[in-house]
Amino acid sequence: MKLYEKLADDIETLIRKGVFRPGDRVPSVRQASQQHRISITTVIRAYLLLESRGVLESRPQSGYFVSARAAESGTHADDLRPSRPVAASAEVDVSRLVLSTLRSIGADDAVPLGSPYPDPQLFPYEKLNRYSTAVGRKRSSWGVTHALPPGSPELVRQIARRYLENGMAVDPNEIIVTVGATEAINLCLQAVAKPGDVIAVESPTFYAMLHAIERSGMKAIEVATHPEYGIEVDALARIIDTQPVAACMVMPNFQNPLGFLMPDERKRELVDLLARNNIPVIENGVYNELYFGDSHPTTLKSYDKKGMVLHCGSFSKSLTAAYRIGWAIPGRFRDQVEKLKFLNTLTTAAIPQLAIAEYLERDGYEHHLRRIRKRYAQQANLMKAMVTRFFPAGTRMSSPAGGYVLWIELPARVDSMKLYELALARGITIGPGNMFSVSDSYRNFIRLNYSTPWSPEIEQAIITVGKLAASCAR
Amino acid sequence: MKLYEKLADDIETLIRKGVFRPGDRVPSVRQASQQHRISITTVIRAYLLLESRGVLESRPQSGYFVSARAAESGTHADDLRPSRPVAASAEVDVSRLVLSTLRSIGADDAVPLGSPYPDPQLFPYEKLNRYSTAVGRKRSSWGVTHALPPGSPELVRQIARRYLENGMAVDPNEIIVTVGATEAINLCLQAVAKPGDVIAVESPTFYAMLHAIERSGMKAIEVATHPEYGIEVDALARIIDTQPVAACMVMPNFQNPLGFLMPDERKRELVDLLARNNIPVIENGVYNELYFGDSHPTTLKSYDKKGMVLHCGSFSKSLTAAYRIGWAIPGRFRDQVEKLKFLNTLTTAAIPQLAIAEYLERDGYEHHLRRIRKRYAQQANLMKAMVTRFFPAGTRMSSPAGGYVLWIELPARVDSMKLYELALARGITIGPGNMFSVSDSYRNFIRLNYSTPWSPEIEQAIITVGKLAASCAR
Repeated sequence: MKLYEKLADDIETLIRKGVFRPGDRVPSVRQASQQHRISITTVIRAYLLLESRGVLESRPQSGYFVSARAAESGTHADDLRPSRPVAASAEVDVSRLVLSTLRSIGADDAVPLGSPYPDPQLFPYEKLNRYSTAVGRKRSSWGVTHALPPGSPELVRQIARRYLENGMAVDPNEIIVTVGATEAINLCLQAVAKPGDVIAVESPTFYAMLHAIERSGMKAIEVATHPEYGIEVDALARIIDTQPVAACMVMPNFQNPLGFLMPDERKRELVDLLARNNIPVIENGVYNELYFGDSHPTTLKSYDKKGMVLHCGSFSKSLTAAYRIGWAIPGRFRDQVEKLKFLNTLTTAAIPQLAIAEYLERDGYEHHLRRIRKRYAQQANLMKAMVTRFFPAGTRMSSPAGGYVLWIELPARVDSMKLYELALARGITIGPGNMFSVSDSYRNFIRLNYSTPWSPEIEQAIITVGKLAASCAR
Repeated sequence: MKLYEKLADDIETLIRKGVFRPGDRVPSVRQASQQHRISITTVIRAYLLLESRGVLESRPQSGYFVSARAAESGTHADDLRPSRPVAASAEVDVSRLVLSTLRSIGADDAVPLGSPYPDPQLFPYEKLNRYSTAVGRKRSSWGVTHALPPGSPELVRQIARRYLENGMAVDPNEIIVTVGATEAINLCLQAVAKPGDVIAVESPTFYAMLHAIERSGMKAIEVATHPEYGIEVDALARIIDTQPVAACMVMPNFQNPLGFLMPDERKRELVDLLARNNIPVIENGVYNELYFGDSHPTTLKSYDKKGMVLHCGSFSKSLTAAYRIGWAIPGRFRDQVEKLKFLNTLTTAAIPQLAIAEYLERDGYEHHLRRIRKRYAQQANLMKAMVTRFFPAGTRMSSPAGGYVLWIELPARVDSMKLYELALARGITIGPGNMFSVSDSYRNFIRLNYSTPWSPEIEQAIITVGKLAASCAR
């Protein structure tokens, strides 16, 4: 048993014995650290464990309290409120900001709290490298030809098999391999809409979606989005009633930045609404494998009866970001997307496709996934506890159900671009809220990445950002 | 000394002794084969060697004759005539035809005379594979970040160095790494023109250029092109005078399919004409390393004073087609192209970039190139001799100065799509002329690839295509 587990058990015993009663404040992290002569991290981990058991609950700026409902667990910091964006479409121009922040994240010595990428240390690089070498040797004469759209048959088969294992039957002939999900999303959007068209998106929305809209000279309209349930279907219906919407782009599972898991009933309602109105929907499913719950999430595509869902996926978040292998499953728009793929980049490199196919066929993908899911879920809790403890009063945050990012609302006076600059000067990157919207709605929001293996350096960086945010809030 | 060299020397001796005199017909390939009891291939090689020495010249359907000007060499089959396309812009829709023919080329058992790719057997796969493995191991934590546009600094530096070695000073900061030249060409075109715009192209033109125009919903106008000197600058000037042209796309060196090397003076005139009219030009330089002459060809970009040349390159033709690494050097449009790259595919995979950079820095790229240049030049001569000998009367063909394709005009009655089907039924692919134009101008043309290491199978395939063409010509 680890030290923090022992501490957690000790505290739980005290509670069961009535030393602490429901509603009682337990010793602060700092007090407990001094009392037990153990590190702050160990105390935080113990408290988190008790939170996850439903024994304790945290209150921002107040500390940890014995839970009233000892058997239940839930979110503990102040919850985010649903977004209420203005229902007007807008030109998109976020790419310059995003590229410059991504560049700063690439600096080797910066703490990557602003990174959109999963930590590469958790990827099976050695194995993939071996498969690449083997494939490259075995098929030394293979060039471009064998990777022509729709993609290497070996990889396409493995992707279809993986969906089947996760409960969705996909026709392998519908799968088009792409250069990451970025290309898949671009091609799907271009297959269903044209320059000037209005595209409905979540609010906040993942900037990758905004990039695709910007790339094609289309306009975005942000739709009210619930931080736990996803895009508000009623709000979308009202927009569709009042203006032409050419397509909808959503991320129903573990949305970046909110991390929500859209309930199945809402997924079905969304697909039905759009089908009734003949509006195609582009589903970005790149985080689907990174769930914290018991089972793989469903997709919009599994509710699609008319071929109107264009589903996009990628290995960049779950297996390796270095190979740039993604795919589209574009429903009735399959042929258009295949043609656009051919015109856009001709082929996707053959060897990475074949190396991933070999890995999926022979190696422990599910085992690897279980490992990173567990790590991310633990680190999400650790980061939430740190934010609860060290960020200024009035801070709210998301409760991610998967993925590896936390979305944080800071007090209204905080300008996240200024906070970004201040943090960068201290060797820490964060994701400023402006990247996630075409309006100015998220000026006081930031996105933090919790995929990096936990360390004192990460903890110190979170504390520093919290202090800087407090200074900006004044 | 090889058998064919000995035969060549014997014949040359007979000529020097006056047995054969200028204008005399030497024994036919078949006769010589029987006289000397050697294979037809050996005779053809001997005659080709004598042709290259300027001792013999071939006349289609007549045979080989002692050259009148014994010291000179030149083209020997009937030359192609300059193209005279109709000066009207047209919508582009060639990609479906191209994709279906490329797919047939991918069939493992077909003789790939229709392939657009260099033969992968001549690429240094083992070496690149080793560098990939080493790079992947050394930088196991590298993900997407370090490959963000403009690209891996190591590769960008090597590309700039390579241009410098070939006589062109390029600012490394101007280079954007892309997913093959396909992406580079697309992004460059999209940076300078918009849907509906008219783009001037050579006639015939490489379908990769037409794809970019199709991709962006633009129109193509074909410009008269000389089979040895390239696009006719005067013809382009007349078009520019009479209608708006948003951009020009050309391949001045070893154009696909014509194989010409545009003379320096013409390059300068073209750049000047377009600069005077403020028309950007996209220069496709993917074959630049594959020259048959003594020195590396110049580029349009080296004559560019105003930053109006967007130069595109790739390693797919010269080093490996499996990695999909290309680049753009977009002059004054650099920032737009960088942004479009970021939006289109986010990054180009890091490990292939670094593996190529290592290869270029440490290994024998120039040695490898000398080897493939020599092979392609030899095989171009062999294929020209075979076509001269076995194709129907009225056949004309190009005289490639580099690259690995031959462009063949068949008698007017031949429908190259029908020929394509007939050849495919016999396990041979060819490139039908319709892929190279938005009009119907090249219905009776085909493109043949001579990059595959020479073999009796290749020879037999050429003879078969010649016979089929003769049957179609009747």
